[in-house]
Amino acid sequence: MNAEIISVGTEIILGQIVNTNAPFLARRLGKLDIEAGTQLTIPDDRVQLISAVQRAWQRFDLVFVCGGLGPTADDITMPGVADALGVSLVTDDQYWEWIKGTFKQRHKDMVPENIRQAQYLAGGQELANPVGLALGCWYEKNGHRLIVLPGPPAEFKAMVDQSLMPKLTVLVGQQEQISSRTLNFLGRPESELMDEIAAATHDLQGVVITSYVQPTQIQVRMTVHDQTPSQAKKLLDQAQQLILQKEGEYFFGVGDDLSLADQVVSLLKDRQLTITAAESLTGGMFQSTLCSVPGASTIFNGGFVTYAASAKEDLLGIESELIDKYGVVSSQTAAQMAQLSRQRMKADIGVGFTGVAGPDSLEGQPAGTVWLGLASDNDVITKELHLGAYNGRQAIRTLAVQYGLQMVYRALTK
Amino acid sequence: MNAEIISVGTEIILGQIVNTNAPFLARRLGKLDIEAGTQLTIPDDRVQLISAVQRAWQRFDLVFVCGGLGPTADDITMPGVADALGVSLVTDDQYWEWIKGTFKQRHKDMVPENIRQAQYLAGGQELANPVGLALGCWYEKNGHRLIVLPGPPAEFKAMVDQSLMPKLTVLVGQQEQISSRTLNFLGRPESELMDEIAAATHDLQGVVITSYVQPTQIQVRMTVHDQTPSQAKKLLDQAQQLILQKEGEYFFGVGDDLSLADQVVSLLKDRQLTITAAESLTGGMFQSTLCSVPGASTIFNGGFVTYAASAKEDLLGIESELIDKYGVVSSQTAAQMAQLSRQRMKADIGVGFTGVAGPDSLEGQPAGTVWLGLASDNDVITKELHLGAYNGRQAIRTLAVQYGLQMVYRALTK
Repeated sequence: MNAEIISVGTEIILGQIVNTNAPFLARRLGKLDIEAGTQLTIPDDRVQLISAVQRAWQRFDLVFVCGGLGPTADDITMPGVADALGVSLVTDDQYWEWIKGTFKQRHKDMVPENIRQAQYLAGGQELANPVGLALGCWYEKNGHRLIVLPGPPAEFKAMVDQSLMPKLTVLVGQQEQISSRTLNFLGRPESELMDEIAAATHDLQGVVITSYVQPTQIQVRMTVHDQTPSQAKKLLDQAQQLILQKEGEYFFGVGDDLSLADQVVSLLKDRQLTITAAESLTGGMFQSTLCSVPGASTIFNGGFVTYAASAKEDLLGIESELIDKYGVVSSQTAAQMAQLSRQRMKADIGVGFTGVAGPDSLEGQPAGTVWLGLASDNDVITKELHLGAYNGRQAIRTLAVQYGLQMVYRALTK
Repeated sequence: MNAEIISVGTEIILGQIVNTNAPFLARRLGKLDIEAGTQLTIPDDRVQLISAVQRAWQRFDLVFVCGGLGPTADDITMPGVADALGVSLVTDDQYWEWIKGTFKQRHKDMVPENIRQAQYLAGGQELANPVGLALGCWYEKNGHRLIVLPGPPAEFKAMVDQSLMPKLTVLVGQQEQISSRTLNFLGRPESELMDEIAAATHDLQGVVITSYVQPTQIQVRMTVHDQTPSQAKKLLDQAQQLILQKEGEYFFGVGDDLSLADQVVSLLKDRQLTITAAESLTGGMFQSTLCSVPGASTIFNGGFVTYAASAKEDLLGIESELIDKYGVVSSQTAAQMAQLSRQRMKADIGVGFTGVAGPDSLEGQPAGTVWLGLASDNDVITKELHLGAYNGRQAIRTLAVQYGLQMVYRALTK
């Protein structure tokens, strides 16, 4: 099945916003083995919309038209698509009453154009909007399907996952059965990881393995086609086992939207442990990342940002002789930062971050040199990272935080 | 002049990477008043590339083809474009020798296909790649122009700014003279800001004013057409003055790539002042944002993350009676966090952040309620923010950090 994604929005055309909807939809389609062969962006312009939709409708089995469902004059998508396909619009009267009631309840003014948000293509089916007002639409004729989706990313993603994917899954399921599972890794270059995974799974037939590099992790997706659910699960289990035998050290969980911070906070909660940190090059980013997880307050009370050597001495009590002897960027300093932050915060686990974010080198060490320390009970371990200057200052700091989370994850799961 | 941007890359089509190149180029084109009327993404597929290029070449004055200039089998852009236009490729022999020398020097292996990176369209002009290997190309015929650019964002952006923009500026300059200036604001809803700016500049002819909303600021661009440089400067100065008379309170500087953190670090450096913070809901993000600016170590030694009430007491010495009396989310607590962090770090300025990141409310206050404190000399001021639950936890934390920076910026510039 081939597909085109048409994004409608002058703001995208002008570069005022980055289009994250199209890649989100493309990844979801990929899970069903549907490839959106081309992706087109056009401004909020009725003539261009009609021409793009008519062209796509002829050439593709599936056409997605995204954005432009609001109540302003710019929002021309639903009537434009109706014109392009030569169908009329129908109003869901019950839904329109609900919209009016919602506005009244919130004491907000409506414009007459709000009625558009309750309209869809005659002969098509509504797609519910779980977080916004405008309806989407699923329209099919002669084996072609056209799907209209809203522009705001939160509405778009919710409608795709909750209203569209179930229908697409049924559509694809009529053709073939697909199962997939995503494994998350940190700490290996993607090419090496994928080469070793290919070697490890060489003798296993019927599992397609692809990778997806994100700033904080590498996702490996395993996909099985045309099998019964139990046979598919068996194949995915086998593949996962073969992969983790080889790469288990770098693995941190199964799931499409999994983050290492979520995993670490969840593990600490389960074990009723608390954590703290003393951060130099990361400057508070590790603690801020923990706090990005709702409910982090049950496992984190606070900690230290010790950017200068003087702060390491004043706030933590690290002896200046130790820093003079070993340097700030050293295993010894990282270990002391971990131990002393843990002591001072009376936490179960303390983590220390010290290193060179760049662009300049420090103590003769190049940008990207990082020491992590992890203190728990009476035990302290340290680890050296070489994150590479070519990544730039922000990437080095972001990766240092992720490797710190990985160190905690390993300590908790070993 | 109309334009199309064609992005080439299977990774974009599959949603494995988000296309940030096209919006970057669109914004740069916008500065020259060129609108890329459509944007197309296609996979690394020669047949689709040829068809897309031929179609665009007929319809647009300017065609940009982005990505696919590497040395692997997937990278088909330069030969594909040559086929589409019916021209051959030429090799820059001198540059090819330089590439070979570079590989030798770095002890890296080459593949025969590396020669492609020294090739461009016969009859066209090379575009230098300031940070990578592959050449770009500028080709023109019969008033149409086609520009080939590399895919990796760092190479793309450097080639656009350093090699392409000077040529485009000349091209556009032959047609008309354009000057622009960008003002940065924080703290007003975009619609209100733009309404008031429209009213304030109503009587000023010849300045076009547009806005660009980013997560951390609102950029307002003023553009003047067809004026001498001195007349254009005069008009932009007039517009800026009218705007700042009304909106000066929310303004923090002129520039396309300006951040409030850069501005604050730079002001502190100039005045030889140091800063610290005690952070609750932001969990270290304010300090981490300061540390994201190279050279932050001259103005920041360290500080505190005091997420729990107990940490506010233990690390800062806030009295538990004060918290019991006024609550954690209060002017009094924010003021104490600012003052005591400043005292303990012997810094010139101390900033306190306390509030409700959500999703749940706290002390009966809804998510988005934030108190900021700022202590300097013997003076302490506080400010309440209502950032709105609908923004979500991360947006509330990010905005709280930006408003904290703005508070420091105002204290330093008043």
